[in-house]
Amino acid sequence: MISVSLSNSIDWEKFEFVGSPRVERRLSDLCGCFADEAAYGEALSHGDPLIYSVSSQAPADGAGQLHYGLGMIAPGRVGREYYLTKGHLHAWREAAEVYLGLAGEGFMLLEEEATGESRLLQLGKDRVVYVPGGTAHRTVNTGADPLVYIGVYPAGAGHDYGTIAEKNFRQVVTDRGGRPVAVDRAEY
Amino acid sequence: MISVSLSNSIDWEKFEFVGSPRVERRLSDLCGCFADEAAYGEALSHGDPLIYSVSSQAPADGAGQLHYGLGMIAPGRVGREYYLTKGHLHAWREAAEVYLGLAGEGFMLLEEEATGESRLLQLGKDRVVYVPGGTAHRTVNTGADPLVYIGVYPAGAGHDYGTIAEKNFRQVVTDRGGRPVAVDRAEY
Repeated sequence: MISVSLSNSIDWEKFEFVGSPRVERRLSDLCGCFADEAAYGEALSHGDPLIYSVSSQAPADGAGQLHYGLGMIAPGRVGREYYLTKGHLHAWREAAEVYLGLAGEGFMLLEEEATGESRLLQLGKDRVVYVPGGTAHRTVNTGADPLVYIGVYPAGAGHDYGTIAEKNFRQVVTDRGGRPVAVDRAEY
Repeated sequence: MISVSLSNSIDWEKFEFVGSPRVERRLSDLCGCFADEAAYGEALSHGDPLIYSVSSQAPADGAGQLHYGLGMIAPGRVGREYYLTKGHLHAWREAAEVYLGLAGEGFMLLEEEATGESRLLQLGKDRVVYVPGGTAHRTVNTGADPLVYIGVYPAGAGHDYGTIAEKNFRQVVTDRGGRPVAVDRAEY
């Protein structure tokens, strides 16, 4: 028998799927994510704003099934670094993810685990980014409005935040003269 | 090394991904799909309009990877039946699909292969429909404008059109007093 929760709609007031509360990540949850630690401490001393949220859907499990989530990153910066997600690898490394931008302007920072190679790809309304298996991915909002997107991934993907928390991404997405650029963390 | 075609954007003039020509299905390609064969023949005698198109992306293959496609169904009817896609099962029956509506108004007709159970689920802007594994699915445009959507599925899903072509869906989506309803084909 077909399950009863096979359809859903986006609540644009709350940036979540109707009936599926979002998980919120505030500035204090992002310790270690920003390269400029002084700017991070300074920002935290002024408050603990919402940085991003995810509203996830897991309609079915097992081989071949899919999960998906609605993400929202608020606009803003810590020092010259744009608001960002923690970023993650999939626990099942082969698992890919398709991101579709629905509103706002931003980028995805991809880092292939095996080679360390980085890519910065535009994500915004009507733009799709493909995250292949074995690739760490972080999303950044470089615009003035919320960046909203949907990500679809295999049900068995799992989320590995630990590997990124330990070594972080090799590159930092930062504002340079009003334009977003990715620079090596070591040189930041 | 990360492949070079990991991002894409929607061309709203052509209803396709930029650089990825769409496959077109015209009325003459849909022989056997509509229940009212007299109305189908009559419609064909007046021309062979575009009914729907799909622009597909296959960025990577293998376990865990994903493919996706941009679909567009033109508005219109054959008799009282709305323009529709052929519909398909996935060759790998376990493979699910996530549909996200981008524009227009319509429905997805789901039919679980094992039980024959049908579901009619709304698909339109900001609505998501989950097609579980083992479920035939067809999309219909019940509105006055093009129905546009993205579907994401496992790279290994494959498309089985033959099973549907042979037995068709058990239900027909038809206009009844200005409202779309699904009725049994046998009673149509």
